[in-house]
Amino acid sequence: MNPNRDPAPSLKEACVQAAREVIAEQGVERLSMRDVARKLDISHQAPYRHFESRDHLLAEIMSRCFADFAQHLDERPRTGDPQADLESMGHAYLNYARHKPLEYRLMFGTPWPEPAQHPALVQHAVHAFNLLRDSLRAMHGHHPQQHAQADRQAMFIWSTLHGMASITQADVMQHLNLAAGVERALPADLMARIGLGLGLPESVPRAAPTPKPKRKPRT
Amino acid sequence: MNPNRDPAPSLKEACVQAAREVIAEQGVERLSMRDVARKLDISHQAPYRHFESRDHLLAEIMSRCFADFAQHLDERPRTGDPQADLESMGHAYLNYARHKPLEYRLMFGTPWPEPAQHPALVQHAVHAFNLLRDSLRAMHGHHPQQHAQADRQAMFIWSTLHGMASITQADVMQHLNLAAGVERALPADLMARIGLGLGLPESVPRAAPTPKPKRKPRT
Repeated sequence: MNPNRDPAPSLKEACVQAAREVIAEQGVERLSMRDVARKLDISHQAPYRHFESRDHLLAEIMSRCFADFAQHLDERPRTGDPQADLESMGHAYLNYARHKPLEYRLMFGTPWPEPAQHPALVQHAVHAFNLLRDSLRAMHGHHPQQHAQADRQAMFIWSTLHGMASITQADVMQHLNLAAGVERALPADLMARIGLGLGLPESVPRAAPTPKPKRKPRT
Repeated sequence: MNPNRDPAPSLKEACVQAAREVIAEQGVERLSMRDVARKLDISHQAPYRHFESRDHLLAEIMSRCFADFAQHLDERPRTGDPQADLESMGHAYLNYARHKPLEYRLMFGTPWPEPAQHPALVQHAVHAFNLLRDSLRAMHGHHPQQHAQADRQAMFIWSTLHGMASITQADVMQHLNLAAGVERALPADLMARIGLGLGLPESVPRAAPTPKPKRKPRT
């Protein structure tokens, strides 16, 4: 065993950790049970005690990413104003993608292992989407006849956020020669335009984020 | 040589074609000069006559994808109405992503080979973005002081389209249990919301695409 590795975690946890390292170092396509075993200096058969296959191990890692992502979205501070809370969810989404690019790519940029075999993965992924859907349903007052509207809005919001999260990491970005100040202002501008696209009031794109004056209590 | 392969194209073209096949079959991560040579049944050194390295070959393929993509966007029918032409560009974008997922992923989902080494790749990619940017500048009347506004709008549009193109191919989609009719209506709904997000007039999200009556000439 590698002496620098914490000896406490179970073999199952050690396999998950080693697999994450393989993914980070070589990409998810190269992940194999053999690599995991080699990294842990254990027999090739040992990881199979906890994971039926490489896909089961990958599904476990993806499930955990979705759970972590949902928790990140869910634990942001709330104001009780559905519109402000939706905007803060958008910022939380972009922050997650920026700070955890590996996890983000695993969730949304990697072909899933056969979903029928991995119900926990599906469940965690759908739960993350439902945080967004439920926020929108709350804005519409939870009327079932508004569910299609909430779903269309959710798909619009998710598309826009996912697109921004992906594009700003794409190599082409640095060559576009965007006008001064545009790149810095992108998240705030995007949130304002999402508000407009939803048909929400008071969503005016701002030229650049400026220090906000403290909000006065509404009179 | 594989007898089924067209013997006419030059070795350079044959390498490009073989590399595309390797990418389609095994993913871009597995692309190697050795694989290309093996596929063409030529010596390992032969591809190097035309491409300095695997990255040069990949950059050539990516450049061609961007050129093809830009041509697809550019040759759509135009009406002369900037707003309608912007919407048709959006549909052309989504169509390309749907019908050429491999090319789409190569352009926007694959780390680029070191751009400084591949100026043609950068040039073709920026050209594709400029089609969008120029359409927006045309709407603003080409005033330089409006360039930042056009760039913010371009990034919003691109984010939304790229997000939709990526999400609708993601495995999670089929598990979201969207309300009836929502998925089919997504492209039209998205275009309408993009219009709203740009602050354009007459952009009202439609519940579902309905057959349009023939447009009357304006009086």
